[in-house]
Amino acid sequence: MTELEGLSIRYKNHKLSILNQKNLPHIEDWEEISHPYEMIVAIQELKVRGAPLIGVAAALSLAQYAIQGASREEFLLAAEKLRAARPTAVNLMQAIDRICTWENDYCPETIVSKSVQIFFEDVSLCENIAKNGEGLISDGDGILTHCNTGGLATAGVGTALGVIKEAHKSGKKIHVYVDETRPLLQGGRLTTWELEKLKIPYTLICDSMAPILMASGKIQKIFVGADRIAVNGDFANKVGTYGLAVTAHYHKIPFFCVAPHTTIDFDCMTGQEIVIEERRDAEVQGVSGAFGHVVWAPHTSKTFNPAFDVTPFSLVSGWVFDNRVHLRSEIIGERGLCLQL
Amino acid sequence: MTELEGLSIRYKNHKLSILNQKNLPHIEDWEEISHPYEMIVAIQELKVRGAPLIGVAAALSLAQYAIQGASREEFLLAAEKLRAARPTAVNLMQAIDRICTWENDYCPETIVSKSVQIFFEDVSLCENIAKNGEGLISDGDGILTHCNTGGLATAGVGTALGVIKEAHKSGKKIHVYVDETRPLLQGGRLTTWELEKLKIPYTLICDSMAPILMASGKIQKIFVGADRIAVNGDFANKVGTYGLAVTAHYHKIPFFCVAPHTTIDFDCMTGQEIVIEERRDAEVQGVSGAFGHVVWAPHTSKTFNPAFDVTPFSLVSGWVFDNRVHLRSEIIGERGLCLQL
Repeated sequence: MTELEGLSIRYKNHKLSILNQKNLPHIEDWEEISHPYEMIVAIQELKVRGAPLIGVAAALSLAQYAIQGASREEFLLAAEKLRAARPTAVNLMQAIDRICTWENDYCPETIVSKSVQIFFEDVSLCENIAKNGEGLISDGDGILTHCNTGGLATAGVGTALGVIKEAHKSGKKIHVYVDETRPLLQGGRLTTWELEKLKIPYTLICDSMAPILMASGKIQKIFVGADRIAVNGDFANKVGTYGLAVTAHYHKIPFFCVAPHTTIDFDCMTGQEIVIEERRDAEVQGVSGAFGHVVWAPHTSKTFNPAFDVTPFSLVSGWVFDNRVHLRSEIIGERGLCLQL
Repeated sequence: MTELEGLSIRYKNHKLSILNQKNLPHIEDWEEISHPYEMIVAIQELKVRGAPLIGVAAALSLAQYAIQGASREEFLLAAEKLRAARPTAVNLMQAIDRICTWENDYCPETIVSKSVQIFFEDVSLCENIAKNGEGLISDGDGILTHCNTGGLATAGVGTALGVIKEAHKSGKKIHVYVDETRPLLQGGRLTTWELEKLKIPYTLICDSMAPILMASGKIQKIFVGADRIAVNGDFANKVGTYGLAVTAHYHKIPFFCVAPHTTIDFDCMTGQEIVIEERRDAEVQGVSGAFGHVVWAPHTSKTFNPAFDVTPFSLVSGWVFDNRVHLRSEIIGERGLCLQL
């Protein structure tokens, strides 16, 4: 397999490694992944995260398994288990479908070449997304983003954060407001880390502070990623996205969904069909990571902890894809977009 | 001075003590306060918090200082410093104004009797608020609340949480959804603690999850407290309140502001005049308390950390006071309420 180098995944000297994102921003440690079952754990523990990156990581892990000599049956079993690691991430299903669809029989070399292709396609998707979205940002804009959608969520520069990076790179003076993104703090830990590396000016806020920032006139645009997009334009993304969309709508602030076109699930007509993963009480009762572990709520407290929420197309100003930008004002029908056409 | 017993403040055997709210819910420890300057620190460190309780606590602390033999000058200096401990809390100013307004000259006995009166007035205000608001809750309601507005925020049963407790006490089956209330987690630590004590069913959520709960139909009413209410009905409350109000408005969910009438600032005509206290970066970069101390954001990250936000009257369904309930639908004018009339 050719050598690959992303911000948080790499294949070097026949070894597949991931940057353990649970340890950022304070510790940057790379972990070798030697078996797809280790990748499943890494995905479930959010060491590897971000819908596009999960697809790339799963594919590379299966490719490595194939060249290590896994039998057809072992390979298919691992693929099936990997597919279930993160139920909301459509890219994961698609990546696995691609490398498990064979013209002839099981062939490790073909699987390797397809998985490398998936990696480079993601890099290229990110570049195209960034170029397509950058034009939506004006000099002087305050931009709000949620969760992490950068080089830590993809094999390339990212999706929503990729657009923001591209605007900065092009010389526009922008200021980024970063939602910390409870409960797992991807904004506070990861987006801040990426912005510091790139020296892009930013301000970290708690999620509940975004509305008053919008009211104060400091936010001109909002860019968020997507984990799954329905054919009508509804989309699932990190919990908190829906509230931002409602609040942006109230304040008439443009709100953009940014993702590779591979995030569209053509079997999913509206957001109502999207099943939302619910996670453990402990994530809401406190925080845990390489930075430490604290519990501030009563140990007996019950919680509601959906990993994602669904934003309806009616609250979205536009969808930035790698192959085009759909503005709702241009093409919306009563039933939403029909992204298939 | 007569003996006094609240959920989080007491005067017993000539000693004034506070329940250190920073240590809840895991540790319940009472701290003796022997000087107003200790009370200032306790207020600033949020060991004592909640607008009504701060007023009561400041008054009792000054009364104790007076009977300990403070001179008129020492007393007035301490009162002036206490007044500045929490700039947004109008109850604090009012309590201090009351015990510093003398018909004749400085008289410790009068100050004691006034401060005891302030304590019992708050208990009584809470009872009246609870009875006034309880009728707004129906059997089977899911109720969202923010921050802590219970017996830990007042000398009595609380404001918004007092209304909720009263509905439970009256036999209505209700379920409470508790916003954790970043950055200082008063919901996750304190409201949960009070609800556990009273065995009222509740679910703890991260602040960003409230919107999707509203969309799912699980929330029938929202009750929040207030730190300062302008004459037109705009009000300042814990940051995150404004976002809830916007989201409730979008989902047509009744949203109530609950406070003693003493929270109205008749020198403040609209919310635009309310100065918002901004707090330290460290509160947003991580969490800190008796439960532990962790920092998950880069140490160099800049933050925006307003303690409060302002909700305009147009988003409020009603104001529940001790002396009456104002419903916006009944009495609203174009310029909002005129709470003075």
